[in-house]
Amino acid sequence: MTVPRIGLTLGDPGGVGPEVALKALAGRGSVPDAEYVLFGDPRLVAEQARALSLPADFGTWREGEAGGPGVFLHEVAAPAADGARHSPDAANGKASFRFFEAAVAAARGGSLDAVVTAPVSKAAWGLAGLPWRGHTDHLEALYPGAIMSFWSGRLRVALLSHHLPLAEALSRVRRGPLLDFFRALHRSLYRLVDGPRELIVPGLNPHAGEGGWLGSEEETEIRPAIEAARAEGIQVSGPYPPDTVFRRALDRPGTIVAALYHDQGLIPFKLEGFETGVNATLGLPFVRTSPDHGTGYDIAGKGTADPRSMVEAIRLAARFTASVS
Amino acid sequence: MTVPRIGLTLGDPGGVGPEVALKALAGRGSVPDAEYVLFGDPRLVAEQARALSLPADFGTWREGEAGGPGVFLHEVAAPAADGARHSPDAANGKASFRFFEAAVAAARGGSLDAVVTAPVSKAAWGLAGLPWRGHTDHLEALYPGAIMSFWSGRLRVALLSHHLPLAEALSRVRRGPLLDFFRALHRSLYRLVDGPRELIVPGLNPHAGEGGWLGSEEETEIRPAIEAARAEGIQVSGPYPPDTVFRRALDRPGTIVAALYHDQGLIPFKLEGFETGVNATLGLPFVRTSPDHGTGYDIAGKGTADPRSMVEAIRLAARFTASVS
Repeated sequence: MTVPRIGLTLGDPGGVGPEVALKALAGRGSVPDAEYVLFGDPRLVAEQARALSLPADFGTWREGEAGGPGVFLHEVAAPAADGARHSPDAANGKASFRFFEAAVAAARGGSLDAVVTAPVSKAAWGLAGLPWRGHTDHLEALYPGAIMSFWSGRLRVALLSHHLPLAEALSRVRRGPLLDFFRALHRSLYRLVDGPRELIVPGLNPHAGEGGWLGSEEETEIRPAIEAARAEGIQVSGPYPPDTVFRRALDRPGTIVAALYHDQGLIPFKLEGFETGVNATLGLPFVRTSPDHGTGYDIAGKGTADPRSMVEAIRLAARFTASVS
Repeated sequence: MTVPRIGLTLGDPGGVGPEVALKALAGRGSVPDAEYVLFGDPRLVAEQARALSLPADFGTWREGEAGGPGVFLHEVAAPAADGARHSPDAANGKASFRFFEAAVAAARGGSLDAVVTAPVSKAAWGLAGLPWRGHTDHLEALYPGAIMSFWSGRLRVALLSHHLPLAEALSRVRRGPLLDFFRALHRSLYRLVDGPRELIVPGLNPHAGEGGWLGSEEETEIRPAIEAARAEGIQVSGPYPPDTVFRRALDRPGTIVAALYHDQGLIPFKLEGFETGVNATLGLPFVRTSPDHGTGYDIAGKGTADPRSMVEAIRLAARFTASVS
């Protein structure tokens, strides 16, 4: 039996990443059969497992050989900060980047079908001198068409832009970038086994501009981009009033909201899918998902972190993997 | 026994306004005892009541005299379009404005404690040559400090600005207007019997700017305004990441989100409080509430309109009235 090969990075050693990763893999009933590969420092894995009374007897991953179902370890020597540093720290930033870098390299080389990433700290990456604002930012440097998207049981959202000041994000709401976004999103969703097929697009202005009374981008930029995409056979509609479009998409698995800026998509997503939300980067040659929460420095080391979002991230990665590999 | 004096306007005659107003008043068990005054054309009231098999034997309201608990009619001769025009129409626009104008005049004159408004059509007002973009817009012309706010069982939201193009709304996010907004909101909430006391403020940019990495308005405008307001004794905090601040306010009746633009507040509000949301204008010398839905032209005249939001609007008006009158 062929199973998906899914890499799991430990995330920031001072955060809840190692904890939720090990908990998710230990509660095996809830995650599908796969060849799971942990990317992390062996000492960190052993310490974390001991603290949680979870098994840590993982075999060493042999890249390129079919390992079959189970959990393996790919050692990434990247000593983290000594002791528990539950705040942004340069050494932890560097370690979390190395885990991620190694998993991405394996995926790019074809040895993994998917990478699931535990949370890192943007501040720690900054302290470590890394220029990226997180996983997606790094992936975009490798794959310029990459798209940030969010998935929960009830709602699916993709973002035209993400980590930009709002005023700058507004300047991206132009015909050309919008059409590119619809195309890339459509292509990417079609590669997923049962991905949504229908894109719905909010307006930018209150009431989607109300016929020009409350703003003009709907008529000058958004509608023309939607029409051009439809002419290419892409199933996309809008612009709809931003304050009702998310309710329209709720509980319709075939529909994804193509949101125009970070908070337009994430305010409703986080309100609705808080515990089980998953972040997925689309438009890559492999699958990448991540739990929709941060490092949780305040609760790290207490053993109380909720692994549900990590479990959902793993499940979504497995679901998407079938067609992408 | 003194009861609140609450005016109810019928809204657009071609929409669901007359229907939900009469239904709400007929199902009396769910609305508190009050002196209710319908502002509308008597023929329209009679027709609508007949169509719904509801009573319409309302006494004539004698402005300035204590009528006591019950439903009264204040005749506003404003013949609507002949027949059912379930689309924006100049005559209906004019009629709905006259009902509203008469109720506001009574409230300004001290004869009403509150005005509850059924939905009007901005397009119909435009066709009728009226310059305002709805009730709140008109009230702002009379009371420049008026604030649009939204109330449901789980969430409360006030808006710094509302019917502006997004780019223009962003330019209002400045220290001075923000401080004025916090002051007016605070003052207004303190006048309500059990109004929220705590204002929480989202950032403008993703992650509230993440320390300046993703935008600067949090540090240059929002935080200084919050600090100035706190120095005046106003209970206000933030800026918080926009995509988590609404969850922070959920189910905390003492907290209201002071949102920075229309959709920042209304996307989460409408996702959460769809059926029972109420729109309230704060900062007036009287109370004004309204159901949080539109004219519903598509279902008007079918007798199927849901009066729950209107009932909630009446209940909120009554709750607020005790202290304002």
